Amino acid sequence: MKVIKFIKEMQTYSESLRLLGKKIAFVPTMGYFHEGHLALMKEAKKMADCVVVSIYVNPTQFGPKDDFSKYPRDFDRDLKMAESVKADVIFYPPDNEMYPANYQTYVHVERVTQNLCGFSRPSHFRGVTTICLKLFNIVKPHFAIFGKKDFQQYIAIKRMVTDLNLDLHIIGLATVREADGLAMSSRNVYLKENERSSALTLIGGLKLAQNIYSAGERKAKVIIREVEKLIKSADFTDIDYIKICDTTTLDDVGEIKSQAVIALAVKVGATRLIDNHVFGEELKA
Amino acid sequence: MKVIKFIKEMQTYSESLRLLGKKIAFVPTMGYFHEGHLALMKEAKKMADCVVVSIYVNPTQFGPKDDFSKYPRDFDRDLKMAESVKADVIFYPPDNEMYPANYQTYVHVERVTQNLCGFSRPSHFRGVTTICLKLFNIVKPHFAIFGKKDFQQYIAIKRMVTDLNLDLHIIGLATVREADGLAMSSRNVYLKENERSSALTLIGGLKLAQNIYSAGERKAKVIIREVEKLIKSADFTDIDYIKICDTTTLDDVGEIKSQAVIALAVKVGATRLIDNHVFGEELKA
Repeated sequence: MKVIKFIKEMQTYSESLRLLGKKIAFVPTMGYFHEGHLALMKEAKKMADCVVVSIYVNPTQFGPKDDFSKYPRDFDRDLKMAESVKADVIFYPPDNEMYPANYQTYVHVERVTQNLCGFSRPSHFRGVTTICLKLFNIVKPHFAIFGKKDFQQYIAIKRMVTDLNLDLHIIGLATVREADGLAMSSRNVYLKENERSSALTLIGGLKLAQNIYSAGERKAKVIIREVEKLIKSADFTDIDYIKICDTTTLDDVGEIKSQAVIALAVKVGATRLIDNHVFGEELKA
Repeated sequence: MKVIKFIKEMQTYSESLRLLGKKIAFVPTMGYFHEGHLALMKEAKKMADCVVVSIYVNPTQFGPKDDFSKYPRDFDRDLKMAESVKADVIFYPPDNEMYPANYQTYVHVERVTQNLCGFSRPSHFRGVTTICLKLFNIVKPHFAIFGKKDFQQYIAIKRMVTDLNLDLHIIGLATVREADGLAMSSRNVYLKENERSSALTLIGGLKLAQNIYSAGERKAKVIIREVEKLIKSADFTDIDYIKICDTTTLDDVGEIKSQAVIALAVKVGATRLIDNHVFGEELKA
């Protein structure tokens, strides 16, 4: 496995692959891998000749009160895990490569980033779309693979790719979960032992929502109220939002008529967790 | 010469050239060609195997009071002119290709777009950088060539390309002028006969500024005052701005110490004209 730290070297490497007609699949990450990341890499391996994984904790997507400095990092462990699933290249740039002095360009996807986490974390998605666009220009992939755990991120990036005419396929993979149903996240390491069962009310809430939906309920308010009750009943939980949105526009829906997603953000102790479920899709847990 | 109207077709065409190792040079335009455009195409022809010229009057770079609907257009004439300098492909997309329903992504270069025309025309450069990025992703060029008549546009695009890590060379060419010194512009057709001599105070002002500079003056205020006097002395002129700026940051400078540009925007009758000169460079007229 190759480790590349510099933008120019990565571009030259990718361009040479493209000139040979090889296909590149790309998995952008902030590192501290779990099974969810590995699932993305395995999927990437199936569809391309070369799998590039980036590891970069992107400062522009963290707000001033977010956990940028304490975000978990372990490069050596990540390297071994990526190697175990036969990733071909790790792109691991330093900050001054990505945001040099006088940096001043940002990409903004205006509407789908307004609701949900975009409301709670203003400027977060501006940072996400900007770093993804930069990475796409550096890695030059044919495919880029994202987990749907970050559903709004996935939708925002798809929107950006469509709007800016990037010649690139965005692929979204189902959320990978722990045995108990908790969505895998690098931030799960923050959870204290006695908070774990409270964290399970997120998946519990999603299952409950699907059950109410399956029973015929279509009013968002009714479904949300029941999920809210469940999550509030657990210790340490502090709900940021529970919303039901159209999967394309991410606007709130009053009544579920077309494809809709229920999305949650809940603080459990000091740890902010998110999860989501598209009604009618399989909910593995 | 090939005319392509659809994004997918243009991308496929460019990708096939790239796979053959061919170099693509790109000249983005809003059409209504003059000698300035042809100079860009001739330069493009020297450096690449394929010259792609786009013709698209981009709505997002016009403000509500700007001349979008009356901007001059003549596709058949443009086609013949591009053919005369052996352009290979004209990319001529309809509006619904470029900005379909639900379009919502914009690129913003934050600092170099604040001063000069960015101040007079808020959101103008957001439209310019967004359409250029889209076109770069569609045409996939190795080189893109811009006229330095639009100096701030040239700087903003260079900044965007650097910041977003586009693997693309931006080339700026010197302003092409009429025999009397007026900078070529598609908007010159708006000028009434009796306004033409007033329009020449722009190049007159730049020459005066260079002369004062050559005589040793370095205070921006002193140079600007003399240029202002000259332009105000002509009929029909209404100064939008006369500024001396650092060529990298485009911030105003008080005293000229490093490379600086004098930039003008002047309404002559109903027509807004711009021009500029980098001190110490050749001023052909």
